[in-house]
Amino acid sequence: MIAILKRGTNENQIESLTHWIEAQGLSVHLCKGEFSTIVGLIGDTTRIDEDLLRSLDIVESVQRISEPFKSANRKFHPEDSVIKVGDTSVGGDVFAVMAGPCSVESEEQLISIAKSVKAAGATMLRGGAFKPRTSPYDFQGMKGEGIRLLLEAKKETGLPIVTEIMNADHLSLFEDVDVIQVGARNMQNFELLKELGRTNKPILLKRGLSATIKEWLMSAEYIMAGGNENIILCERGIRSFDSQYTRNVLDLAAVPVLKELTHLPVIVDPSHATGSAKLVKPMAMAAVACGAHGLMIEVHNDPKKALCDGPQSITPEKFADVMEATGKILKETV
Amino acid sequence: MIAILKRGTNENQIESLTHWIEAQGLSVHLCKGEFSTIVGLIGDTTRIDEDLLRSLDIVESVQRISEPFKSANRKFHPEDSVIKVGDTSVGGDVFAVMAGPCSVESEEQLISIAKSVKAAGATMLRGGAFKPRTSPYDFQGMKGEGIRLLLEAKKETGLPIVTEIMNADHLSLFEDVDVIQVGARNMQNFELLKELGRTNKPILLKRGLSATIKEWLMSAEYIMAGGNENIILCERGIRSFDSQYTRNVLDLAAVPVLKELTHLPVIVDPSHATGSAKLVKPMAMAAVACGAHGLMIEVHNDPKKALCDGPQSITPEKFADVMEATGKILKETV
Amino acid sequence: MIAILKRGTNENQIESLTHWIEAQGLSVHLCKGEFSTIVGLIGDTTRIDEDLLRSLDIVESVQRISEPFKSANRKFHPEDSVIKVGDTSVGGDVFAVMAGPCSVESEEQLISIAKSVKAAGATMLRGGAFKPRTSPYDFQGMKGEGIRLLLEAKKETGLPIVTEIMNADHLSLFEDVDVIQVGARNMQNFELLKELGRTNKPILLKRGLSATIKEWLMSAEYIMAGGNENIILCERGIRSFDSQYTRNVLDLAAVPVLKELTHLPVIVDPSHATGSAKLVKPMAMAAVACGAHGLMIEVHNDPKKALCDGPQSITPEKFADVMEATGKILKETV
Amino acid sequence: MIAILKRGTNENQIESLTHWIEAQGLSVHLCKGEFSTIVGLIGDTTRIDEDLLRSLDIVESVQRISEPFKSANRKFHPEDSVIKVGDTSVGGDVFAVMAGPCSVESEEQLISIAKSVKAAGATMLRGGAFKPRTSPYDFQGMKGEGIRLLLEAKKETGLPIVTEIMNADHLSLFEDVDVIQVGARNMQNFELLKELGRTNKPILLKRGLSATIKEWLMSAEYIMAGGNENIILCERGIRSFDSQYTRNVLDLAAVPVLKELTHLPVIVDPSHATGSAKLVKPMAMAAVACGAHGLMIEVHNDPKKALCDGPQSITPEKFADVMEATGKILKETV
Repeated sequence: MIAILKRGTNENQIESLTHWIEAQGLSVHLCKGEFSTIVGLIGDTTRIDEDLLRSLDIVESVQRISEPFKSANRKFHPEDSVIKVGDTSVGGDVFAVMAGPCSVESEEQLISIAKSVKAAGATMLRGGAFKPRTSPYDFQGMKGEGIRLLLEAKKETGLPIVTEIMNADHLSLFEDVDVIQVGARNMQNFELLKELGRTNKPILLKRGLSATIKEWLMSAEYIMAGGNENIILCERGIRSFDSQYTRNVLDLAAVPVLKELTHLPVIVDPSHATGSAKLVKPMAMAAVACGAHGLMIEVHNDPKKALCDGPQSITPEKFADVMEATGKILKETV
Repeated sequence: MIAILKRGTNENQIESLTHWIEAQGLSVHLCKGEFSTIVGLIGDTTRIDEDLLRSLDIVESVQRISEPFKSANRKFHPEDSVIKVGDTSVGGDVFAVMAGPCSVESEEQLISIAKSVKAAGATMLRGGAFKPRTSPYDFQGMKGEGIRLLLEAKKETGLPIVTEIMNADHLSLFEDVDVIQVGARNMQNFELLKELGRTNKPILLKRGLSATIKEWLMSAEYIMAGGNENIILCERGIRSFDSQYTRNVLDLAAVPVLKELTHLPVIVDPSHATGSAKLVKPMAMAAVACGAHGLMIEVHNDPKKALCDGPQSITPEKFADVMEATGKILKETV
Repeated sequence: MIAILKRGTNENQIESLTHWIEAQGLSVHLCKGEFSTIVGLIGDTTRIDEDLLRSLDIVESVQRISEPFKSANRKFHPEDSVIKVGDTSVGGDVFAVMAGPCSVESEEQLISIAKSVKAAGATMLRGGAFKPRTSPYDFQGMKGEGIRLLLEAKKETGLPIVTEIMNADHLSLFEDVDVIQVGARNMQNFELLKELGRTNKPILLKRGLSATIKEWLMSAEYIMAGGNENIILCERGIRSFDSQYTRNVLDLAAVPVLKELTHLPVIVDPSHATGSAKLVKPMAMAAVACGAHGLMIEVHNDPKKALCDGPQSITPEKFADVMEATGKILKETV
Repeated sequence: MIAILKRGTNENQIESLTHWIEAQGLSVHLCKGEFSTIVGLIGDTTRIDEDLLRSLDIVESVQRISEPFKSANRKFHPEDSVIKVGDTSVGGDVFAVMAGPCSVESEEQLISIAKSVKAAGATMLRGGAFKPRTSPYDFQGMKGEGIRLLLEAKKETGLPIVTEIMNADHLSLFEDVDVIQVGARNMQNFELLKELGRTNKPILLKRGLSATIKEWLMSAEYIMAGGNENIILCERGIRSFDSQYTRNVLDLAAVPVLKELTHLPVIVDPSHATGSAKLVKPMAMAAVACGAHGLMIEVHNDPKKALCDGPQSITPEKFADVMEATGKILKETV
């Protein structure tokens, strides 16, 4: 970590800063330039409060050299993490495909989709029971009943299930859920992250709409700091100035960037990212080509009746086509 | 609300869509163009699920003409709302100034700041007890003890208090708090918003980092839909591509835009928006000039020791100067 | 095109608007809702001045249904355009690969790179002679001499050459250049676009840093309106809030979106988009997987001495590896 | 300037880097941390090519401590620059107000507006003769004839005139123009900037749609490096994710930020920034309150017939009201 001091800082002030840093168990290296003095903080700076340092009168700016995340950092954990989920996993040799409807609507709907996505090669079933909606007047999900139906579909097909949590008070309902999803809007709901850190469930952590890669990893760190290291990252598009043709911008370069920064697996959700069924196939192919560990795809047996997020759902037939196309790409990336 | 149909949609399909819309209590007006047919939905479209309509096979795109928010909408509530807070208020004749430290640190610190901001003209005391921090390793606030100290300061000075909630489970601790703040990162924590809708406390709703004005009003609508109409909006800067000199971009045009769209009062937080103590005064002056109903300003008696968000805090002396400067502007805007 | 009228617009005003629209050769369809009247403009609205319509007193907002671009629009030109470049082409059966140094530095450097990229399968040589640099104090390119060296390399290898123009006054120097590149910063330099519209050279039009897809196509339209329809679009990343790990965000979904909207070929530049040599390979693979018609890649024989944009250049050896990896993906996308 | 070296860099490599830096007239200070070595470059780093340094194999990242702009930098020119324009000026004691139509349309229109804005207190007349339009099919301005009419209006009223240039080849037409405007889309048209650097005309340099403050100042530096130091900066809104209610986000904090970084005057254009006539008054008041040296405002005598950018124009009556309101604020900011 580097602190750049303001012009005019005097020797006494520098000395007093040096003492303060050393009192926190770090050592100091000074570098005096023509216009400013640079203070290098040497040692484990992970737990230094950057804002506190920045707030000192004599400090102009602060820059981290090493990353502020530790548990998620590949430097301290060089091997890829493989997250076990029932009989399957995310990361490692398995290419994970989580497919299913945006919202659980009925037993029939769900079991029919579950069977067809399994037949096409999906490794997990996804479906929303609690739905975050921009408007309080829109359908909010089947809630507990939706989870019950997901568990039925799991029994029927053997597919592990992934579903979103919006409130830590609902955790008891998620006891038999295989992977708990944290949605983009809750990526910095730190209280929820802390609660999930106390469980041992695999957590699918979606990127926030305007979250930097570093902030995203810091949110993973919140969960890991509580003892739960079973994190799967999911890129789902970021907000940009152009939303005429795609709802968000799918930031695929985040995949190779994350694979270098962290040992955690990273999957891609082309359905939410683009908001367009037509774009699911090409973007799924691109995600595989740049090294994603898996995909999350919305599939609906009757897209025109989907109770939410309809435009981004594909049919089971189209899903099978996506699986075939991505399978070919996958073979060429090994 | 307008739905634009895809080319090639046939008469039967249009008829079936018309029936579906009429079944929801709306009437339909068709407009056939050279390339596409436009369906006008006439009536109360507030509760129509836009995504569901968009998901229909024959629909190319959907555009709302009237706003999707109802309780917050000035069209249905032309007069300005005045939110009562203890003996004072936000909106109406009072220009509200909420001042105080980013974090509550000690009784001494808090009471000293509370007295000096009161003397300078603040109408409320703000202070963080529960702190949302990007890193799990940074100071997370004094929590319950912080609220106790705020209540002490209220007793001592008479100033109503404003503090942030991060978890609905903490609501019992907020019983004597005058205004409950929802932070930017929780603006779309819909579960929290619903819980706050069941209270009758004034809620200060900060704008999310990448929230559109419409999404922000929809979050207000979540609280109002539960029966609590005591909402104060707070612009605190949005995320942009340039964060070298200011942490966020303060979107002051949101102030007059909101004053036209909604009857709810809107205040401005120049401290968090810019992240720079030097910029608090000019941006506070600008906020007053463009019609804000109030300000939220961080004040610290020893900025170099602030446990968080230090760079954006000003001293009580500088705060008095800001109050004087904004007071002069205020006089000229009436 | 739809114009939504303000509440309170009276019959006379609507009639006068109707006359005005009809006078421009369009017909009008009115749709009266509870709160507002919608005016549908039917006919060729491509040449209607949207801003002018929006400026009328009684108009609340204007929305285009059909796209404002005509020459670039796939609706009016359903077949893919294939841009002939010397003995090769962009679009159609050929997968175009433009490779070479960011800046031309010397004859030796250029010819050595040209030979190695040709051997690895590049179809064209790219190299900067005129360089747009943020700082006036940075290296501005070898200018005319750089073009002379590119022509030497072309003679030596047979590869057609691509190089950037920054000033229409330099056009005479580009007489033997095969493809003229318009850089991101000049995407809306309309005077330059108009001049290029008067030539018959293939133009590589890079997307502006914050250009929407529609604006980008309108810039293509500027060139095409002058008579030159030989346009190649190049996605090169857009500006976003996170530039810590990648310089820009590569918007790969723009590729399938453009393939639907326009008949013009679209290629991808992973070097400039990410600003990182390590990311070139995975992002090139992703670009191929989602259907790009080609790639533009920076290659340098001694990346540590590149006079500009060094971090994003790969060596000829790494380029050969990228060609092999993308070749495998390409085979699976047909 | 600081270069952070990669882990594993050896002593020989550090020594060779040190020699290279010293060869450029700078001295070096090394700071070795646990994970990385930091190289401080001491001396005049303004002319160091940051990209070149970053491209070296052993360099992980480069950070500037001092600003890369020199002529525009307040550190080397502490006093405010006052730009002389005819009998008036921008900066210093004069509050500059440039008002007039978006496009020059006729002699009558222009002279009528010029007289009324003068009467209301404008110090200059603005009007577009060459118009940058997104679509090639929209009105492109009256060009040379527009400049002739502006000169007529100047003769009639004595107001100096401001008008936009889009092509250096048109410079001869601008001989009697008082201030030459460079529009947002040309902010990084470096060839145009260089040409303007060879004149001695005051240049109004608008901020690019997605230009950082540093890039904007580097564009000013392009003009100043050529010898022309008569630059006026103009904030006109930046692109963001929300354009439903305002076309751009007016970044008013840029005003006090620029006043600290540079000695050049900075004015604000609330008309283009918001794209809404209703927002001109509050945002003009805010701009004055936070210290702008002037305003640029669109005024049209018949907004419903304006040939471009209609929605953002106000009438001469409303302009007089804006002048009165901003005048009161101005009095309170001194």
